[in-house]
Amino acid sequence: MPANDKKAKIGVLGASGYTGAELLRLLIPHPKVEIVLLTADRRAGKTVADVFPQFAPYDLPALRSIDGADWKAAGLDLAFCALPHGTTQKAIAALLGAAPATKAVDLSADFRLADLAAYERWYGHAHAAPELQKEAVYGLTEIYRHKVKAARLVANPGCYTTCAQLPLIPLLKAKAIDPDEIVVDAKSGMTGAGRAAKEEMLFSEVSEGFHAYGVGHHRHMAELDQEFSLAAGREVIVSFTPHLTPMNRGILSTIYVRGLKAQPQDLHAVLLKCYAKEPFVHVLPFGTVPQTRHVRGSNMTFIGVAADRIAGRAIICSALDNLTKGASGQAVQNMNVMLGYPETTGLEQVALFP
Amino acid sequence: MPANDKKAKIGVLGASGYTGAELLRLLIPHPKVEIVLLTADRRAGKTVADVFPQFAPYDLPALRSIDGADWKAAGLDLAFCALPHGTTQKAIAALLGAAPATKAVDLSADFRLADLAAYERWYGHAHAAPELQKEAVYGLTEIYRHKVKAARLVANPGCYTTCAQLPLIPLLKAKAIDPDEIVVDAKSGMTGAGRAAKEEMLFSEVSEGFHAYGVGHHRHMAELDQEFSLAAGREVIVSFTPHLTPMNRGILSTIYVRGLKAQPQDLHAVLLKCYAKEPFVHVLPFGTVPQTRHVRGSNMTFIGVAADRIAGRAIICSALDNLTKGASGQAVQNMNVMLGYPETTGLEQVALFP
Amino acid sequence: MPANDKKAKIGVLGASGYTGAELLRLLIPHPKVEIVLLTADRRAGKTVADVFPQFAPYDLPALRSIDGADWKAAGLDLAFCALPHGTTQKAIAALLGAAPATKAVDLSADFRLADLAAYERWYGHAHAAPELQKEAVYGLTEIYRHKVKAARLVANPGCYTTCAQLPLIPLLKAKAIDPDEIVVDAKSGMTGAGRAAKEEMLFSEVSEGFHAYGVGHHRHMAELDQEFSLAAGREVIVSFTPHLTPMNRGILSTIYVRGLKAQPQDLHAVLLKCYAKEPFVHVLPFGTVPQTRHVRGSNMTFIGVAADRIAGRAIICSALDNLTKGASGQAVQNMNVMLGYPETTGLEQVALFP
Amino acid sequence: MPANDKKAKIGVLGASGYTGAELLRLLIPHPKVEIVLLTADRRAGKTVADVFPQFAPYDLPALRSIDGADWKAAGLDLAFCALPHGTTQKAIAALLGAAPATKAVDLSADFRLADLAAYERWYGHAHAAPELQKEAVYGLTEIYRHKVKAARLVANPGCYTTCAQLPLIPLLKAKAIDPDEIVVDAKSGMTGAGRAAKEEMLFSEVSEGFHAYGVGHHRHMAELDQEFSLAAGREVIVSFTPHLTPMNRGILSTIYVRGLKAQPQDLHAVLLKCYAKEPFVHVLPFGTVPQTRHVRGSNMTFIGVAADRIAGRAIICSALDNLTKGASGQAVQNMNVMLGYPETTGLEQVALFP
Repeated sequence: MPANDKKAKIGVLGASGYTGAELLRLLIPHPKVEIVLLTADRRAGKTVADVFPQFAPYDLPALRSIDGADWKAAGLDLAFCALPHGTTQKAIAALLGAAPATKAVDLSADFRLADLAAYERWYGHAHAAPELQKEAVYGLTEIYRHKVKAARLVANPGCYTTCAQLPLIPLLKAKAIDPDEIVVDAKSGMTGAGRAAKEEMLFSEVSEGFHAYGVGHHRHMAELDQEFSLAAGREVIVSFTPHLTPMNRGILSTIYVRGLKAQPQDLHAVLLKCYAKEPFVHVLPFGTVPQTRHVRGSNMTFIGVAADRIAGRAIICSALDNLTKGASGQAVQNMNVMLGYPETTGLEQVALFP
Repeated sequence: MPANDKKAKIGVLGASGYTGAELLRLLIPHPKVEIVLLTADRRAGKTVADVFPQFAPYDLPALRSIDGADWKAAGLDLAFCALPHGTTQKAIAALLGAAPATKAVDLSADFRLADLAAYERWYGHAHAAPELQKEAVYGLTEIYRHKVKAARLVANPGCYTTCAQLPLIPLLKAKAIDPDEIVVDAKSGMTGAGRAAKEEMLFSEVSEGFHAYGVGHHRHMAELDQEFSLAAGREVIVSFTPHLTPMNRGILSTIYVRGLKAQPQDLHAVLLKCYAKEPFVHVLPFGTVPQTRHVRGSNMTFIGVAADRIAGRAIICSALDNLTKGASGQAVQNMNVMLGYPETTGLEQVALFP
Repeated sequence: MPANDKKAKIGVLGASGYTGAELLRLLIPHPKVEIVLLTADRRAGKTVADVFPQFAPYDLPALRSIDGADWKAAGLDLAFCALPHGTTQKAIAALLGAAPATKAVDLSADFRLADLAAYERWYGHAHAAPELQKEAVYGLTEIYRHKVKAARLVANPGCYTTCAQLPLIPLLKAKAIDPDEIVVDAKSGMTGAGRAAKEEMLFSEVSEGFHAYGVGHHRHMAELDQEFSLAAGREVIVSFTPHLTPMNRGILSTIYVRGLKAQPQDLHAVLLKCYAKEPFVHVLPFGTVPQTRHVRGSNMTFIGVAADRIAGRAIICSALDNLTKGASGQAVQNMNVMLGYPETTGLEQVALFP
Repeated sequence: MPANDKKAKIGVLGASGYTGAELLRLLIPHPKVEIVLLTADRRAGKTVADVFPQFAPYDLPALRSIDGADWKAAGLDLAFCALPHGTTQKAIAALLGAAPATKAVDLSADFRLADLAAYERWYGHAHAAPELQKEAVYGLTEIYRHKVKAARLVANPGCYTTCAQLPLIPLLKAKAIDPDEIVVDAKSGMTGAGRAAKEEMLFSEVSEGFHAYGVGHHRHMAELDQEFSLAAGREVIVSFTPHLTPMNRGILSTIYVRGLKAQPQDLHAVLLKCYAKEPFVHVLPFGTVPQTRHVRGSNMTFIGVAADRIAGRAIICSALDNLTKGASGQAVQNMNVMLGYPETTGLEQVALFP
């Protein structure tokens, strides 16, 4: 933690994408940090307002190329890495090589899989920074808070996985549900797909419609497998289907589970107890389910548990904002833990509804 | 069928709701029918254009009260009943009592359950027209075409149920899937909720968000139970969760099934063969899944089958427009069958995308 | 007009964009035409269903490159040209050069300006087919029907311009309004921007927001200038601001005018009389204004006139679907006129609402 | 201002509507206030979470009836009144009668018109608290800051009017534009219409479409007339048309003006200078115009000025969030001024985009 009287110096690598913008939204009014460096390779030389006009009223550094950065001179306390998947391993290796005292929170998938072979299998190429992978801590804050506190490099979890893991990990740990009978049907807003200009992401293509994608083979499964297996103490593979919803923000996971001796209300009790003191996880009364709009723009996850009409089965819904708790909000939460600030600092925003 | 040179005389009961409007959209350019009577109790005395301005350019009868109708004098060949659930049994009984030669297609749930006890259990009150129920034919056209042809009263299926039954009934009949292991996760557009002015249906409440409702106890389950059990030759109860999506039209059902000796590609083959000659069901190539926007405004159902990564399991997606094939389009399809017209007459509209 | 017993052979150049898709939607069920040739350069070799899955159930020719087309052998009765602005002059010249008996409807801006100097000034390059320009007929059907009937090459009007011209041309012709005091504030759905993958057209960029663009210098002004000046018999320049609305289809023009001796109700009377027998223009009762949703997917234009509270001023609203009457619907209307079919053939679709 | 060590006690009357929810969103994390009383007549007895689930994680008073409130005992430092138009005059009179030391910010239109006769003319009934009207200060903070500082009762401006007044008042004061030639074409998101359950506000009615309403006679005109006339020192009446846009939040006003000797760039210069030090008004570079999405959820107003192609005319666009700067944000801004807090306290939220 920087001395009380000075703010931490923060850099954001990849500030022209949506998770970059969300980091700025949260960091600008954060009382303990100062944004001193922003990169965006294709937009180097432009102002932030050129790529995100909402930041025009604020005094922020111009966008620069990542290659020209002098990490040592920058003297960052912490860098957020919001670069595309597959480009981060080298960038973080360069950064931490030149400035070993800087901490890093990586929002990509590059450091999330502890098993290098699994990484290669899912991503089709060898890991480019295997030594750093050993050091990386998986940053699902509520579960790994103590490891995050001591970490130099945190791999921030994915949005789909955060949404599924928060309700399921406590139930798997408690051996309350059958690990072989889990179906996760997940629905995401469009910002989860990023800001790359692709025909299938145009407004006219995706408004007024709904569809599944990556059916049977979505990459986020690797992350689910890893964490669910750790929680259950055995291999766990779930059915998982992601969908795109015509809205900007939000993920709702509808999760079908079967109790092992436990009734649906027992599952609710496990979650209620587990998250009783967590500031960013709220368990709804039994039988009620959350809506994504009620967590929009906040760092909250809402979880609901209801009984299925088939005895012994329960339906769990969890909702979060994919850009906040599903990405940049959790990244700032991890930063707070890593820098010794109160965990909720700068994350007090109440959800924006309507 | 009316004589070749004259058009069938058609009435629409409940013309001021969304399924009523959809019937008008399809019937106005239909070459074989003439709309001669429209009712809308709360709007009686108004023109159709008062409640749906898109019909202003067309010459249509004014809205009248259902109570004042003289069914005998009206001489309808066929009446569509687009009234709210629970109000139709009496209305149809009165209509068919006064004009026994008139045929009727009911779009509500009132005549869908053959088992009067099941009706009472799900709807909380006794059936008001048990004699007519015996006569009623469940109008999933592709499955019951021959019965529909001879019917005087057709119970048009629900939108969620049509979407789930079209892919699942052939698989259950073929005993290709395990009837005890079916999860139907369904997502609907907002028009499925009707036109009643409710706070939770306001634009500002439902745009930019997603949620489940009726978790564990939705009434459409009764209709699923009935038809799936008939198809399987034994009792079938599925897990079913409906969701609301911020779009007007469309239902996507994501269905998790397990093959009984059958592999996912076998399931695809069953559906491909079953629907090869159906004009309104299109089975996509194996491994691809449909989008609701590609059936919008058409009477089509698109079905896709993909393998889950868990061996022996498949994920099926089916998509239709809840107001067209899920309601008024199928109603017109049934009318065509009942009146002896080619089944596709007036239903040739290609989907409106974008 | 082809002999009664055979259908006209139609080609669509540029079938992979939105106006191309809208042409196919209208032409597939059109009883008098047969689609025999489709081009889409970047997608040559693919099926139409590959680029627009909604057409999967229909039997259509594969997409081919425009360069490889043998126009003479194709023997088209009529070609629609739905290529990007600036590429059409050469394509049409090649087509009509090789197959002089083929007729053409061009949906781009390439042939809309009769004044070659004005074209060069607005578009920054010389016209590539000046001879053909002389022959081209501006295809605002309601105004130029008789010229369209005899034309070989029709320049289909723009969407913004059709929406503004239909209410204003009769008023200018009648000298009922002051030509120097016209403000056109136009709002368009997103499909007007086309299908090119641009960051600013992504769902997450344009949903949940509204903005003006091209303020003070939008290219459609040239077309407005030309037609308004012709109607008024003197030079007319209007204030025009286009905006983008988070919806797929529809344009609403809010038009501020001042009567020359005429009161707002007189303006309404002029329009009512002018369009009394037009199948695709509907003038609402005085004081009421239209909504874009009530013309969606139809070839209708709805026009409303209301009094401003400032004496002598009126506010006119006109609404159409930018892809239908604003582009492909009017193109089919022109085709019907050019081939001698009843003007409404294949355009009977009632608006899709909700 | 309450003593430094204690927070101001705040009440919100009408907490179950959208402006009420927006007040809670801003007040919950506000460091200088404590919410001690909430009313919502139809929902009295319920929790806030029952009517707005996003507030479930926060500790807030239950909703109570306004009639049962003991204003003296409540000891409020300030009350926000977010009741429907027409109900507030009596409520504020009762509150200030019983607790004269309490200050009030009224978000309705009830105290905005200084001229009682104008009020009666526009609203169709006599003002119910004429004495209080004399005391009320019109709370467009940037213009009336000094009066707000000393006020006990502030009439918070309307959303449309704030959006039009911020750019136009400085120009009228500077006599830079012709007061007789102003056209304000305004487009609002749906939350401006409130939370009352009306058919025309249902999602399926208003999504995917755009329309004008109140053409020629919208009530907000009275407020525009009052303030524009004050600024110009003579009577000013503008053409004003409001529209509804399928989005939740945001107003964009497109304003057509004519310079009096002033060129468009001069108008820009006037605004740039006027708002140089304002924290919540940002003037964009000349020729660029704002988008509503870039101010969403923030208290910012963005203003752009561009030249029309007609000499001497300019087109001004201003954008704000109708619930924030257009209602509850400005109300909190006024509260800060009235209680002696820094004006930006609790309003530091950066816009939520995407």
